[in-house]
Amino acid sequence: MRPLTANTLNPTFHKVEYAVRGELAIKAEVLREKLKEPNHGLPFDKVISSNIGNPQQKGLDQPPITFTRQVAALMEWPALADLAPNVFPKDVVQRAKELSEEIGSIGAYSHSQGVPFIRRNVAKFIENRDGYPSNPNHIFLTAGASAGVSLLINALITSPKDGILIPIPQYPLYTASLAQHQGLPIPYYLDESQGWSTSVSSIEAALEKAHKESITPKALVIINPGNPTGALLDEATQEKLVQLCEKYSLVILADEVYQDNLHHRKTQPFTSFKKVVSHLQSPVPLVSFHSISKGVSGECGRRGGYFECTNFTEDVIALLYKMVSVGLCPPLAGQIGVDSMVRPPKPGEESYDLWKKETDTIHAALASRTHIMAERLNSLPGVSCVDSPGALYLFPRISISKKAQEAALAAGKQPDALYALGLLDETGICVVPGSGFGQKEGEWHYRLTCLCPGVDEYVGKLEAFHRKWVDQYGVE
Amino acid sequence: MRPLTANTLNPTFHKVEYAVRGELAIKAEVLREKLKEPNHGLPFDKVISSNIGNPQQKGLDQPPITFTRQVAALMEWPALADLAPNVFPKDVVQRAKELSEEIGSIGAYSHSQGVPFIRRNVAKFIENRDGYPSNPNHIFLTAGASAGVSLLINALITSPKDGILIPIPQYPLYTASLAQHQGLPIPYYLDESQGWSTSVSSIEAALEKAHKESITPKALVIINPGNPTGALLDEATQEKLVQLCEKYSLVILADEVYQDNLHHRKTQPFTSFKKVVSHLQSPVPLVSFHSISKGVSGECGRRGGYFECTNFTEDVIALLYKMVSVGLCPPLAGQIGVDSMVRPPKPGEESYDLWKKETDTIHAALASRTHIMAERLNSLPGVSCVDSPGALYLFPRISISKKAQEAALAAGKQPDALYALGLLDETGICVVPGSGFGQKEGEWHYRLTCLCPGVDEYVGKLEAFHRKWVDQYGVE
Repeated sequence: MRPLTANTLNPTFHKVEYAVRGELAIKAEVLREKLKEPNHGLPFDKVISSNIGNPQQKGLDQPPITFTRQVAALMEWPALADLAPNVFPKDVVQRAKELSEEIGSIGAYSHSQGVPFIRRNVAKFIENRDGYPSNPNHIFLTAGASAGVSLLINALITSPKDGILIPIPQYPLYTASLAQHQGLPIPYYLDESQGWSTSVSSIEAALEKAHKESITPKALVIINPGNPTGALLDEATQEKLVQLCEKYSLVILADEVYQDNLHHRKTQPFTSFKKVVSHLQSPVPLVSFHSISKGVSGECGRRGGYFECTNFTEDVIALLYKMVSVGLCPPLAGQIGVDSMVRPPKPGEESYDLWKKETDTIHAALASRTHIMAERLNSLPGVSCVDSPGALYLFPRISISKKAQEAALAAGKQPDALYALGLLDETGICVVPGSGFGQKEGEWHYRLTCLCPGVDEYVGKLEAFHRKWVDQYGVE
Repeated sequence: MRPLTANTLNPTFHKVEYAVRGELAIKAEVLREKLKEPNHGLPFDKVISSNIGNPQQKGLDQPPITFTRQVAALMEWPALADLAPNVFPKDVVQRAKELSEEIGSIGAYSHSQGVPFIRRNVAKFIENRDGYPSNPNHIFLTAGASAGVSLLINALITSPKDGILIPIPQYPLYTASLAQHQGLPIPYYLDESQGWSTSVSSIEAALEKAHKESITPKALVIINPGNPTGALLDEATQEKLVQLCEKYSLVILADEVYQDNLHHRKTQPFTSFKKVVSHLQSPVPLVSFHSISKGVSGECGRRGGYFECTNFTEDVIALLYKMVSVGLCPPLAGQIGVDSMVRPPKPGEESYDLWKKETDTIHAALASRTHIMAERLNSLPGVSCVDSPGALYLFPRISISKKAQEAALAAGKQPDALYALGLLDETGICVVPGSGFGQKEGEWHYRLTCLCPGVDEYVGKLEAFHRKWVDQYGVE
């Protein structure tokens, strides 16, 4: 007997699906390698990985925030402050010194919840944002938001009939983590015709269906701003959602990693669930997740993030601590990245002007690109696209003709996967089919990031491919 | 109904035990805070965290390898190469440039298995070490070895009656991960009288017991050099273990993170399981784990490591890849740390002399401290201690008198936990009781690291406490 085959492996490994790094992304890597060959014969000269919100990747090259990296360089090699005294701004040197005094070496394990000093800074950031107190002992620094989400889903699922309410479309981390921890997704649908809005009635319909199937709902996942939709909740809706969770004894898992990616900051601001729960004095347990991978920081490779627990008892916090302690601690590079995100330079400090210029530029470019892309996609036959107020993505809907559906069936693919594979083969642009995020039966979408620098060339390629597709298969 | 209480949380969270960061470590943190008060009234002025192999922590202050940190600083802020041209050695600048060309920004997600270029360098390191080929596509870079161990245990356990053979004493990551993934430990005992040796007969006895209890063994964990024991396997034993795994269809999980911590390198060298499996042309599936947290690198906070799969089929590798892709990628700071570990400066390169001096110093200090500590511990009444040839620890056995056992019972503690708590209270030295690693019924130990710089003061405190304990409770 062979001791190890795919068939004898944990069956959850087969059930997990994560389209963001799935078939399309794997194929994109193969094509990228092929491009290195002198006579590759491909109809494009670069692969654009629009499948993943990875701003600093090669080809997108969103520059890192200089302040963050200067602090990190000094933490890596503290002697630099003396060896190159005129190279670093004073506030950077001061910041690195302060962090070193608290942390010691970034080559040492920290407290398993993260450096206490950095957690206190996160708590102050939350207090300033929301106007309500935050407890550093209820904050866990993590290796990106994903690690925290997985931990909480693991904590909440206690039987194979336990489920968690997941928006459709969703970021597939949620269904993947549920599959891994042997829980069930309870899908509730966002309303595309209302700009991908979230409604209490849609969630109650999902709860009713779950009840009929004897599934116990444990928590409600809200992604705000939305992924892949980019939609932003208003406070009135958030209040209703909190009241709903109170009524049905649900924990709120609030994925707020795009809270700083707002394209109309003044008219459509972000409100945290922490603020709403605090304002309502609700007893609903809430976990809110944040990350340095998105926003203007875009520091995906550092693996930094945090979650804050609200209305959690000390014994539950102690159990979460014990579980994270087995993994020892989150990466220090990520922890100091979190510190730079929650404590950016202030007006009057030497680094402020550059920091302001860099972050303004990134915000403006993202807002402008998102709007232009949505407009041009909307002008294509058979395409409609919500012009997202937040996050890094668009999620256009594409109509698929009978002919295209038959071609997909013959190829053993979902129609939107066939579309995305065609797009990749012809343009080098890698997107993720809507089926990877979930969508209503008979509807088709894809998700693409709004990160590519040359928006004209980029959208031009999308348009050219789409017109060719329509020529071949027609519109619905 | 409250939606979230300790009682409604996943029961595996209650079962997980991780003594290395358990009661003693938590108390040590409390004492460390208390020391900041002006009139703390404690009988010591610093807490020494000997509970965990964390060489660069405050108070131990093992210096990082300069080469590693210089490369990392340049990767954080590449402009430094031009802004401070005379500060960095030429080979460091060259190395950072090469890495940047391959990786791009360290703020971007990499391939989920880790940067392909770094995996190729790991494969070359393994080939040079063992003299057998290594496949970069079967190497996974990880956030420290722990993340990989947890993944593999998750992969192998498919029913609550599946088990994994674990040495006793063990590093509690194994039992913790088994509890989390709902598998069973199948303990096999190491022989303290033979320098904590591993024997086939002890493993076969454990297999027989498992069989009677209807537990299906899936894998054998070997920690070599041992943790907490420091024991080192010889090749003849390793061959027998591979043959045993072949016979019983077991996967080998070889924890080799201490492969570079050898105190008698010439007479007692390290042999990897990869080499033994390759030499025997055995079909046994093997996973070997390595890390940048130990060795002379001591870069715990970077969270870097890798595992290499041998005799794994492509479909199993693809499933492992899918699972790690949900977490996106290991921290880039850890990945470049792995690169520096597997590609240190070579003779003739500008950084070589300093690198050689730094690593020689760390090796020599650890070997000398380990030997001195073992010798002095052995001279204490009621203490016996194997003088470890490897790793970072000693695991002395302490005899516990009837009187001490009764005192422990009255305090609701294990006797070795009572001993360790007394040691912490009186000296500020935090160790981990043997009960956290497993030991034979009626035997008591503790694990302490051999990392403290002032060995004389350190052991002096251990001796003074022990004599006081013996005065109070007597020897067995």
